[in-house]
Amino acid sequence: MRVAVLYSGGKDSNYAFYWALKQGFEVKYLVSMVSESDESYMYHVPNIHLTELQARAIGIPLVKGFTSGEKEKEVEDLKAVLEGLKIDGVVAGALESEYQKRRVDRVAEELGIESFAPAWHRDPVDYMRELIEIFDIVMVGVSAYGLDKGWLGRKIDGKALEELVRLHERYKVHVAGEGGEFETFVRDAPFFKAKIVFDEVEKKWSECNYSGVLEVKRAHLEKKGST
Amino acid sequence: MRVAVLYSGGKDSNYAFYWALKQGFEVKYLVSMVSESDESYMYHVPNIHLTELQARAIGIPLVKGFTSGEKEKEVEDLKAVLEGLKIDGVVAGALESEYQKRRVDRVAEELGIESFAPAWHRDPVDYMRELIEIFDIVMVGVSAYGLDKGWLGRKIDGKALEELVRLHERYKVHVAGEGGEFETFVRDAPFFKAKIVFDEVEKKWSECNYSGVLEVKRAHLEKKGST
Repeated sequence: MRVAVLYSGGKDSNYAFYWALKQGFEVKYLVSMVSESDESYMYHVPNIHLTELQARAIGIPLVKGFTSGEKEKEVEDLKAVLEGLKIDGVVAGALESEYQKRRVDRVAEELGIESFAPAWHRDPVDYMRELIEIFDIVMVGVSAYGLDKGWLGRKIDGKALEELVRLHERYKVHVAGEGGEFETFVRDAPFFKAKIVFDEVEKKWSECNYSGVLEVKRAHLEKKGST
Repeated sequence: MRVAVLYSGGKDSNYAFYWALKQGFEVKYLVSMVSESDESYMYHVPNIHLTELQARAIGIPLVKGFTSGEKEKEVEDLKAVLEGLKIDGVVAGALESEYQKRRVDRVAEELGIESFAPAWHRDPVDYMRELIEIFDIVMVGVSAYGLDKGWLGRKIDGKALEELVRLHERYKVHVAGEGGEFETFVRDAPFFKAKIVFDEVEKKWSECNYSGVLEVKRAHLEKKGST
């Protein structure tokens, strides 16, 4: 099975990739859809460029597609990007978003290829526990009451997960960030030939919105040890 | 004919794209090979990211492939990127480089697709005259005796071309930069839906090497007028 993995660089798309490899799928392309409505329309070292560094670390071509960001057109935009690829399936990191899953399923159906969502409806805590064992995950965006500036740039390890579980109990913060509470970035994974090191970051925080982003200004790839 | 255009963002790859459209080809993907040996391995706002802005302006998906930069492997690396694309041909901006042309021809042959190099062996002055009529071309890299810092960021218009012709007569500077004398970037073309505007640039110049680059720190897309 030749597949493309929908890839944004966060924990879910890396899990999708990891799962595809475990199935013995041949991952031909990473596909990243860039929305023209988001801030990255302005070229200003947005973190979205970091997916390129990840693709390089993995060693698989990255296809960047562009979408106007209008919901009606997103299906067509994704379809236009996938239809020229020689693939039998597409793998997405959808966890609970019906909209996201339906969109990918529909495109796959129209193209006559299979659609996989390996994390679909998994228990968030179990899922997160598995992820932190496999990946080096860092929090690059935060937007929820209960998550303060200290979370920006923080590695998600066992202790952080425990805190997220407590924040879920107190403030209903989704443990896997499915409500948009946080965005993650994977700096290392078993299938990365090199790991990503952040050289210069800036925390941008808005006190009134309880939200912020970690802007990665410089990063590089570093050879991994023999471990 | 469904094709991919090898695309680096400079005048030659934009000409390749322009030519493909004129032939009535359906350009499915822009393909950009990033070399791991070059400086852009370090993530530091390299201009290579500007190709993404161009792809967005054109509205065609950009496939970024990665190559170690070793000459022996480059053919295989390019082949791996192209082989998963549903294309009948590949179009490259090769002008005089036998190495570049042979490499693309060989990959195309092995994949059973066609290879086009529309600018191949064109007269440099005629070619440049055509290009400056069609594109908004700016000099982003310079490396030749006779080309000073003033060329960095300069638009290549009729007057600039006249000067290049004189520099060719005096110092053998190749008028189209085929000897690596300069690198160009296309900010606008008839097939760009929006044009690229540089917001912040920095000239990096090395007096001892007679060379320099225009580092584009920020740029954005701007809607084009009705003209």
